[in-house]
Formats: sequence, structure tokens, C-alpha cells
Amino acid sequence: MSGASEQKSGKVDFIGVVQEEASKVTIFPEFCAGLKGLENFSHIIILYWFHLRDHKKERQTLKVVPRRHLGAPEVGVFSCRSPSRPNPIGLSVVELVEIKGCTLIVKGLDAMDGSPIVDIKPYMPRSESIPNARAPEWTDHGSPT
Amino acid sequence: MSGASEQKSGKVDFIGVVQEEASKVTIFPEFCAGLKGLENFSHIIILYWFHLRDHKKERQTLKVVPRRHLGAPEVGVFSCRSPSRPNPIGLSVVELVEIKGCTLIVKGLDAMDGSPIVDIKPYMPRSESIPNARAPEWTDHGSPT
Repeated sequence: MSGASEQKSGKVDFIGVVQEEASKVTIFPEFCAGLKGLENFSHIIILYWFHLRDHKKERQTLKVVPRRHLGAPEVGVFSCRSPSRPNPIGLSVVELVEIKGCTLIVKGLDAMDGSPIVDIKPYMPRSESIPNARAPEWTDHGSPT
Repeated sequence: MSGASEQKSGKVDFIGVVQEEASKVTIFPEFCAGLKGLENFSHIIILYWFHLRDHKKERQTLKVVPRRHLGAPEVGVFSCRSPSRPNPIGLSVVELVEIKGCTLIVKGLDAMDGSPIVDIKPYMPRSESIPNARAPEWTDHGSPT
């Protein structure tokens, strides 16, 4: 039934944009109905586009030294949150403070102003909260991601 | 410096594929170097492509009644984890059991065999574990997402 996809790539249509020092996310009017019920979640997952890294060279990056973590070793891009990566998608778990029409007021979004939004998902603690997850020591310093 | 992006869409290149009842994720050889250091994380975030929903009609879906949660009300697609959504990207937090070369053995991946992989990110409990996040009552029943 499922079968392996023969697609080699996919197209994402941006659904909104990050604004005002990453405190606001405005969803474009044509996607706004998709927010129904979101106010019942205290936290959401925002997938956004690292638009300033959407270039061939950055997308060919496979290893980096995470700059925001002093003393971090060289690691693969899939082992850190580098914006230079094959698909320039960022992920932030943020607090949803308020919804005003098509605009979300959020706290903790680690995205630059002007970043396109790819998706919004509700944060489900049953499957997404893993307090005892193990991470290497270098992630304890500096940026939370 | 940042500026709003004028792009309306982006291209994602698939980096791997889900196999064997969602217990294996094989990363294509050209991206495999990006896994360096991933073995130091107990959990990872997998972004995958809902390839069976990558059609115009499914991508126009904005409201659904979440089928895997008995008694759920109609909600927006950004308030649930419906595979029918504007950008057919799925997100699963999974346990990383083992890495064998370019293949990840995982536990808890909620993806169909054959699903293309879009990105792998390390799970960072400092920013991603929010045990007391509030979610509506309907999410307590049935599927964990």
C-alpha cells in the first residue's frame, strides 16, 4: 500500500512570516482557518525556513562546529541545530501567549524576523516531553538548542 | 539585515527513507556524514514527508476532525497532527536505539514505510521538554500525537 516514494524532492508553500523580534508570527489569510482550536495549547512547535541560508553552499554543509556552544566539537548537521543544512528548516518549541486573529504572540522563538513559516503543530507533552533524554555535555552550555 | 523573504515557497530535498515498519531510517550516502555525533543523543526529532498526502486536495485541507482521538472536535490542521495539511511534513520525537553506518534504528516513529526523510535534529531536553505543557482534553485519548 504505502510503497517507497519515487519523489526526490518536495515543495513547501510558506504559510506565514516571523515579525517583531520573533515575538509575532503572522499567518497568511488563506491559511488562517487552520488555527482553529490552537488557543487550547500552551505551547506549539513552529517550523520555519532559514531563508538566509537557502543557497547551494549552505545546503551542502554536512559538518559544523556549533558556534553557540562554547567548546563544542565538530558534529554533523543532523546532530546539531545549525541553520546551514541540506533543508533549511528550523524548529522551535515556543510558548503561545495569545492569538489575535491570524497573528500568534509567542515567547521563545529562535528565528530571525522575516523568516517564512512552514508549519505550526501543537505541542503534545505525552509524546514530546522527554525530561530525561540524554544529550552530550556540549549542549549544556550556551544556547538552549 | 534579515528582511522579509520574498520567496513564496521552498524546495526540500529528501535525505533518506523510512523502512521496515518504521523501525529503520536509512539516510542516503550523500548525506550520511551529517550524522556524525548523533549517537550521543538518546532521542531525535525526525521530520518526514507525508508522501501519500502530497496532492492538491490534501494540501488545501484547513480543518479536520482528528480521527485517532475519539471524541475530538473539529480543529484547524495547525491544531492537530493531521497528515493532510498545507505542507505535508510530519514530526516524530523518537528514541535512537542504534546507528549502523547510514541507518538509524529507532523506536516510536509514527511514519509509514517509504516516507521520505526531510531532516533529522537532535532532541534537546533543555528547550524541548515541557512536561507541564497544557493541551486540550481530547489529546489525552488514543494516539500520543
